[in-house]
Amino acid sequence: MAKRPLILVTNDDGITAPGIRTLIEVMNTIGDVVVVAPDSPQSAMGHAITINSTLYCTKLTGVDGPQIEYQCSGTPADCVKLAINELMDRKPDICVSGINHGSNSSINVIYSGTMSAAIEAGIEGIPAIGFSLLDYRWTADFESLKPYVEKITRNALANKIPTDVVLNVNFPKVPKGKIKGIKICRQAKAYWVENFDKRQSPMGRDYYWLTGEFINEDRGEDTDEAALGGGYISIVPTHFDLTAHHAIQQLNTWDFDE
Amino acid sequence: MAKRPLILVTNDDGITAPGIRTLIEVMNTIGDVVVVAPDSPQSAMGHAITINSTLYCTKLTGVDGPQIEYQCSGTPADCVKLAINELMDRKPDICVSGINHGSNSSINVIYSGTMSAAIEAGIEGIPAIGFSLLDYRWTADFESLKPYVEKITRNALANKIPTDVVLNVNFPKVPKGKIKGIKICRQAKAYWVENFDKRQSPMGRDYYWLTGEFINEDRGEDTDEAALGGGYISIVPTHFDLTAHHAIQQLNTWDFDE
Repeated sequence: MAKRPLILVTNDDGITAPGIRTLIEVMNTIGDVVVVAPDSPQSAMGHAITINSTLYCTKLTGVDGPQIEYQCSGTPADCVKLAINELMDRKPDICVSGINHGSNSSINVIYSGTMSAAIEAGIEGIPAIGFSLLDYRWTADFESLKPYVEKITRNALANKIPTDVVLNVNFPKVPKGKIKGIKICRQAKAYWVENFDKRQSPMGRDYYWLTGEFINEDRGEDTDEAALGGGYISIVPTHFDLTAHHAIQQLNTWDFDE
Repeated sequence: MAKRPLILVTNDDGITAPGIRTLIEVMNTIGDVVVVAPDSPQSAMGHAITINSTLYCTKLTGVDGPQIEYQCSGTPADCVKLAINELMDRKPDICVSGINHGSNSSINVIYSGTMSAAIEAGIEGIPAIGFSLLDYRWTADFESLKPYVEKITRNALANKIPTDVVLNVNFPKVPKGKIKGIKICRQAKAYWVENFDKRQSPMGRDYYWLTGEFINEDRGEDTDEAALGGGYISIVPTHFDLTAHHAIQQLNTWDFDE
């Protein structure tokens, strides 16, 4: 690529999160960066979009670096739509989302605002990567991920991500220097068992907190969970055709005429 | 099935929407019904879940019919989690979601609260169906859909939905009596082109409304869009393993060591 690529950066933890600040630093070394990110945390927003209320978007001044930054009142998917269709002069060459504070491996991809932003870009025909670290803390070590984020992004730009595919990249939570490498994986078949923490408000009204336990019974060695458990970075190629093609034949045997 | 099945009913338009009231009427003829639905409209919520705020849930009294009803302050996915893990005595035999006011065909499945509820049930191992009508109006004709909703649900109970598959059922908007039949389909490859309607508030602040145009360039005769366009009901078997298995080999040729 002769000229510098145009890179859209977003996330779901909000524009001030350490994870996105690290991602911006890395992208500034690769291309021209436009940031469009939520003005407040939007975790677990799935692929929500804002259709019944208004969206605000503000261009930030006094930004620390060469990038252009906007903060937006919407969801991660809103940010990407707004960036591509309203704020940017041309389509970005790539969209990167994250680095998320917390895992988006396995079934978490379904609930993930980080990945919904990347998938939205993918739907709109833009190569996209979601990055996540298996560490929820605001003080997590993002610094040591920088060389890997750069390598993966440069590979994606040079080799092209397959059409209609979005990369879901997760980093293991291991001590500095202990990442063993990168593995291309499939999504592990796992799920959450919910526990609702039932409480009573000062006014005597019952309410719930959603909590849960992550259950992975998938013992496959080719899964993201296996890679992460072994200290590897997992990359799952992810797509947005949800058709279960293998089930079509079976459903065609059903009798709707009786 | 000797005893009456236990049926969980939910939606994303809210518990008072005509679509869910129709669905409840049909399900009362098939089994024992528990309704857990949002207390306000939650359209386009994707697979959002509520983890950073509290959930309220109220059992309704004076309900018109044999069903048990709860309204919940959360998203459609929250409703399903709460129903299965907190409110119901045993796992439901099936979960039905809808009937949505508006299409969830093609790429709309990604943004759909209706389908996220059904998919959440699927993830938790419960057979599930999302029903949607291609008519946004509150006054849409749901009445004539009843025989089809019943047929599809009874087939799902008798024949079993394949494991880890959720049915995405869409009804065409055609005059009463003009539905031609049912087709098993794949998700059409389509997308939205957004147009942001930029306005100014009375206080002089810019804001946006998200609007868009649906673009379907997929000419396949086996797609949901083709079936619906021809006056047929579309059923797409949908799954939640987002792995693009075909892309794994290509990604393994990337060089991360350079």
